[in-house]
Amino acid sequence: MKHLPLLAALLLTAFPSFAQTIGPIENLVRYAHPLVGTQRMGHTFPGATVPFGMVQLSPDTDTISYEQNGKYNPKVYEYCAGYQYEDKTIVGFSHTHFSGTGHSDLGDFLIMPTTGPLQLNPGTADQPEKGYRSRFAHQTEVAEPAYYKVQLQDHEIRAELTATTRVGMHRYTFPQAEQAHIILDLTAGIYNYPDKNVWTFVRVENDSLVTGYRQTNGWARTRTEYFALQFSKPFKSYGARNYAKKQAYRGFWGRFDQTQNFPEQAGEQLRMYFDFSTTAGEQVTLKMALSGVSTAGALANLRAELPGWDFDAVKRAGQAQWQQELSRIVVESPNKVDKENFYTAMYHAFLSPTVYQDVDGQYRGLDQNIHQSKTTNYTTFSLWDTYRALHPLLNLIQPARDADMVQSMLAHYEQSSLHMLPVWSHYANENWCMIGYHAVPVITDAIVKGNAPFDAQKALDACVTTARHQWYDGLGEYMRLGYVPEDKSGSSVSKTLEYAFDDWCIAQAARKLGRPDIEQEFSKRAQNWQNVYDARIGFMRPRLSDGSFRKEFDPLSTNNQGFIEGNAWNYSLYVPQDPAGLIARMGGNKRFVAHLDSLFTMHLPDKFFAETEDITRDGIIGNYVHGNEPAHHAAYLYNWTDQPWKTQQRVRMILPKMYRPTPDGLGGNDDCGQMSAWYVFSALGFYPVAPASGEYALGSPAIHAATLRLENGKTFRIRAKNQSAKNVYVKEARLNGKLLARPFLSHQAILDGGELVFTMAGKL
Amino acid sequence: MKHLPLLAALLLTAFPSFAQTIGPIENLVRYAHPLVGTQRMGHTFPGATVPFGMVQLSPDTDTISYEQNGKYNPKVYEYCAGYQYEDKTIVGFSHTHFSGTGHSDLGDFLIMPTTGPLQLNPGTADQPEKGYRSRFAHQTEVAEPAYYKVQLQDHEIRAELTATTRVGMHRYTFPQAEQAHIILDLTAGIYNYPDKNVWTFVRVENDSLVTGYRQTNGWARTRTEYFALQFSKPFKSYGARNYAKKQAYRGFWGRFDQTQNFPEQAGEQLRMYFDFSTTAGEQVTLKMALSGVSTAGALANLRAELPGWDFDAVKRAGQAQWQQELSRIVVESPNKVDKENFYTAMYHAFLSPTVYQDVDGQYRGLDQNIHQSKTTNYTTFSLWDTYRALHPLLNLIQPARDADMVQSMLAHYEQSSLHMLPVWSHYANENWCMIGYHAVPVITDAIVKGNAPFDAQKALDACVTTARHQWYDGLGEYMRLGYVPEDKSGSSVSKTLEYAFDDWCIAQAARKLGRPDIEQEFSKRAQNWQNVYDARIGFMRPRLSDGSFRKEFDPLSTNNQGFIEGNAWNYSLYVPQDPAGLIARMGGNKRFVAHLDSLFTMHLPDKFFAETEDITRDGIIGNYVHGNEPAHHAAYLYNWTDQPWKTQQRVRMILPKMYRPTPDGLGGNDDCGQMSAWYVFSALGFYPVAPASGEYALGSPAIHAATLRLENGKTFRIRAKNQSAKNVYVKEARLNGKLLARPFLSHQAILDGGELVFTMAGKL
Repeated sequence: MKHLPLLAALLLTAFPSFAQTIGPIENLVRYAHPLVGTQRMGHTFPGATVPFGMVQLSPDTDTISYEQNGKYNPKVYEYCAGYQYEDKTIVGFSHTHFSGTGHSDLGDFLIMPTTGPLQLNPGTADQPEKGYRSRFAHQTEVAEPAYYKVQLQDHEIRAELTATTRVGMHRYTFPQAEQAHIILDLTAGIYNYPDKNVWTFVRVENDSLVTGYRQTNGWARTRTEYFALQFSKPFKSYGARNYAKKQAYRGFWGRFDQTQNFPEQAGEQLRMYFDFSTTAGEQVTLKMALSGVSTAGALANLRAELPGWDFDAVKRAGQAQWQQELSRIVVESPNKVDKENFYTAMYHAFLSPTVYQDVDGQYRGLDQNIHQSKTTNYTTFSLWDTYRALHPLLNLIQPARDADMVQSMLAHYEQSSLHMLPVWSHYANENWCMIGYHAVPVITDAIVKGNAPFDAQKALDACVTTARHQWYDGLGEYMRLGYVPEDKSGSSVSKTLEYAFDDWCIAQAARKLGRPDIEQEFSKRAQNWQNVYDARIGFMRPRLSDGSFRKEFDPLSTNNQGFIEGNAWNYSLYVPQDPAGLIARMGGNKRFVAHLDSLFTMHLPDKFFAETEDITRDGIIGNYVHGNEPAHHAAYLYNWTDQPWKTQQRVRMILPKMYRPTPDGLGGNDDCGQMSAWYVFSALGFYPVAPASGEYALGSPAIHAATLRLENGKTFRIRAKNQSAKNVYVKEARLNGKLLARPFLSHQAILDGGELVFTMAGKL
Repeated sequence: MKHLPLLAALLLTAFPSFAQTIGPIENLVRYAHPLVGTQRMGHTFPGATVPFGMVQLSPDTDTISYEQNGKYNPKVYEYCAGYQYEDKTIVGFSHTHFSGTGHSDLGDFLIMPTTGPLQLNPGTADQPEKGYRSRFAHQTEVAEPAYYKVQLQDHEIRAELTATTRVGMHRYTFPQAEQAHIILDLTAGIYNYPDKNVWTFVRVENDSLVTGYRQTNGWARTRTEYFALQFSKPFKSYGARNYAKKQAYRGFWGRFDQTQNFPEQAGEQLRMYFDFSTTAGEQVTLKMALSGVSTAGALANLRAELPGWDFDAVKRAGQAQWQQELSRIVVESPNKVDKENFYTAMYHAFLSPTVYQDVDGQYRGLDQNIHQSKTTNYTTFSLWDTYRALHPLLNLIQPARDADMVQSMLAHYEQSSLHMLPVWSHYANENWCMIGYHAVPVITDAIVKGNAPFDAQKALDACVTTARHQWYDGLGEYMRLGYVPEDKSGSSVSKTLEYAFDDWCIAQAARKLGRPDIEQEFSKRAQNWQNVYDARIGFMRPRLSDGSFRKEFDPLSTNNQGFIEGNAWNYSLYVPQDPAGLIARMGGNKRFVAHLDSLFTMHLPDKFFAETEDITRDGIIGNYVHGNEPAHHAAYLYNWTDQPWKTQQRVRMILPKMYRPTPDGLGGNDDCGQMSAWYVFSALGFYPVAPASGEYALGSPAIHAATLRLENGKTFRIRAKNQSAKNVYVKEARLNGKLLARPFLSHQAILDGGELVFTMAGKL
């Protein structure tokens, strides 16, 4: 009953005028399937979380080590989210997971309930009985937004998970068992390796409350996550083992038996266990609150956010949150699969960035100090991926959150002794993953689109300072030469192209903010893409310090060709700020269309797939790589040619091929929602080719109708007349009844509210 | 000039009525010699610190590793305070040092100025030129309270140190040097070993400000110390090396050269360097602020406490603080050596416990959470040592501080998931060093003597809870059997005797607070000393679970005989709560006097010195071990016999033998001021045999007169008529003119103010 006020608040806060606009909304939560993407390379997790939640409580099916016999183990790549659908065993349930990343971390505080004699090692997938892990079958598995259920066969325990923003809740239904245990494994983690744990610390505060932290040196170099864990039933006894190879200095602690019922534990590799006796069907509920600040913060989060023990009410509240977030866009379609794909994509797009702040407003900053913010602080900014479509989507239908995210980036900048905006913001760390300075398109997109409840001039200064760092990743040479020379800095063409786009974004914001000097400087830099285009071969190509193009060059290969996560075929299209200019440079309309056509239709020899773990047949159409991001805008480039119908056709081909409501239904890493945001936009019929332009390119809607319920109180309705799987071509598009002359739509038009009606046809 | 307000405040706050009472006070600071105890086993440090300061900025003459070839290196014991007077080289100046401990930790943030080519390793004592260390000579060394100076020969640099409570200040006078460096070695530390550093973290905030922290697993299991380091002159360039054998996970950091001018550093074993060019005689000043909370806390401490750059003013302010604290007792003597011994002892007694709290009131608690306190939080409670005389001394002449220390212990208790008062409180850690629960005599001493501006009932409850823990160090058996059985818990006799004394203290406080049930329970437990007395041999003796005394027994040995830091000869006298009862039990007055006489006069065979590193000839008189604490009260026990004159004679023999104003002038580890507090009391002519009794035993004053300037505004004056080195016997003692019938003095008599006049004589 404690949760009723929360539920009521949730239902009342947003969209008071909604009922008048489109009538009651059906249950959208049931269309979102967390298991989508858990098979093969989606790297999503199936567990329980609320929108943008700090807790992602999810089963881990293996604890692959980053190292095997001292060498990198490529199999670890499959376990970025801890779960692989093909696996037959579950090791336990941990509380933090990235969604869709291609590298990883987290997997904090793995909990596993067991019965029978205590086993403190996880066992192996082949021999789960030799450890605490358990076999499971997908038939017993239920994965819904904010709810996960599975039967742990070896222990005869039904496990159920749900969550609030900062608290994970476990409900374990035990058999009759003299020996029942809850294991808390602080040595477990994702992308783990022997030295990743820097320190672990546990206090048993009383017979049902445990606090502690885990400090790691991983993808995040200096990361500490704190917890407070409360049990619904007091444990009978408990114990600890330190598995550190190097024994922690014992000093005068040596005279105490710290292995049993000793409440103050610290060491590098701790595993804890808590003992119970259970009757048949007895339920033991756990609440695990997290904090990036302190165990006191975790406990305060626990008490503020989840004071009671009503698992079902927490699940209902979590699903109500999802219903609220998903209903920001209400789609209509006679085909259930359309809604499943759409709301699964919405679900995945609303998992991250994640809240990284306690209920009292405190959070840990990049400087490792504790800061206070009135806005919500977020982390997990996988910006190289998400600047393209995810942040534009949030800027459109979650503008308040997107502005808070921008403020989080600006705080990161303020806390950076390098004076850098985040590249990949990761739990009070910068992990430097990928290239560019793509906080810039996110911040400038917000400024250009009028969503800047922050000091926009200061934000622009942060963008400019970031973009002028001589030391950063070829940027000094870029500023001196107009391109990144491959002999000085690898992936030089990708860097040049992306810097040029980011620079163009700065110029757009500078124009909006009346800073002509900045606008001029960065408009000029935005032209630098031209410096790596080799007109003789018609491709972007790595260039050396002496001005020459590098001789060795294979435009199909991704291996050391001056590009990252893409080859020259894909990357040569990366001038989102000026497709017309690119077309002219590439020989005009006809030659450009031919390049695009070839991209989608050519056959890529197998040998290229061996080069990059991140590029697989799953995510490829011809030589178009949808599984990675650099060409995500490519299908929309036909809009700048005389054949925009090909955009419509390509988009409607990509959508069903790359997105299916099945575990193997994602064509590549979801990359913190970028892949899914691409779906949401494209299914609605438009896409932000150049964030910070204020304009979208039209494609071909895949739904029959959709209502965008905007935070400004207005709605924007999209309808597709004569919609069908075959009617992929847009015969005409009318905005508020007025025929659109060009296949583009302004952001302002959406904000103004109104209706966009597509008339679909099966032929041109 | 910024320091004038601080100085003025210091001079105005205390003792307004003082001038009227005893007239102007001479400069006492010049009598206190920080070098005393730095040779042999005193384990004091010679560097700069203010009273009870958080910073102890002092030279380290070697960085001996705890391990050598994987085994304990006994030589590390000599370096508990980082400095040994015999050494010829200085490695650098670090900011935290225990004073007088027999185990150690700390030595944080070692700074070394150098000239010439950069060397980042410390070098060796034999070959200092192979590293950054330098030769030095004592002729160039000046060590005063709050000031230290030395010439670093190899670098031709004059180093000067001073400090405020939370900030260490360095002034380095350089020669002309194209290459001058300041090295900040985060791998250095006291009692170091390869895995002691858990993590280090450094940020170069700008060209003259650096922040960071060092996290260690040492005597304190989970300790993090933060710093903010400011340079008076911007460095030209800087760099970092990570000496970790296991390379920290590099991830995407690998593409940056982090070794030079890269401001964000983290890893297990960092050394930093900062480059300058200097002109002849150029001074570079550094300010290093500490915090147990965060780097933000350290920076706030720096800005609040030491905003300016006037080294000489900081030194003056520090010495003004010392003058204020030392002048709490103004002694008179025609012999300079008496004042040197007395004020050196006062100085050492006022080094710890140390402030462990930021200027804003925040501090790190035992639970690793940040707490806020309006009173001053202290750490470094070496309670097994200091409950005997140091805390009674503070309770008498520093009652406000002592009450704050008690509150710090109570906070520790509140933060302990073990529900234990501190045993050895160590920078937000419990290190469990030594035995007993000797926070109890400190807390109860404060309660009994009316110095309890805290919830005394709650404090008593904390004492009782602590004293009832079944799991603690033989305490369960002690409660069941009335003694600790040696077959269950080593040092069983020492534990039994000390538990019994602590229990008696609880009873005294319970009586004062009107808790008859507690008084009764613990008065009974206070009798438990009787259970380990073997009347057949006249010694305390280890007893087994079956009730029998252990057969193997050597009352001279300290090795596995049921005692710790003492043998049966010394420990058999440990019933401070009831000397009369002990005397009766030991066969009455005559036999007891014979035991005491033998103790002081017998010859202890050499073999016993090999048994314990902590017991050396330096600290021994006969078989009386003054270098350790268990018999510190022994000389005063003659007061309970018919020969109190022997107390007078023994005390006057011990004082000059164990305390001299020379580097080798301490007869044993100073043990955080306990040895020195013994001197202060004994030189004044009385000693707290049983803290919490409210009474002192009279001895023989060593000074000619002394004025105790009490915080209640009153003064208590002591005079020794006919005083001389030969006139050691007290012919009579008069309190406010009234002849004392017994050789005892009540605490209340001192608090009331007045005069105690001893008349001395050379014969009985």
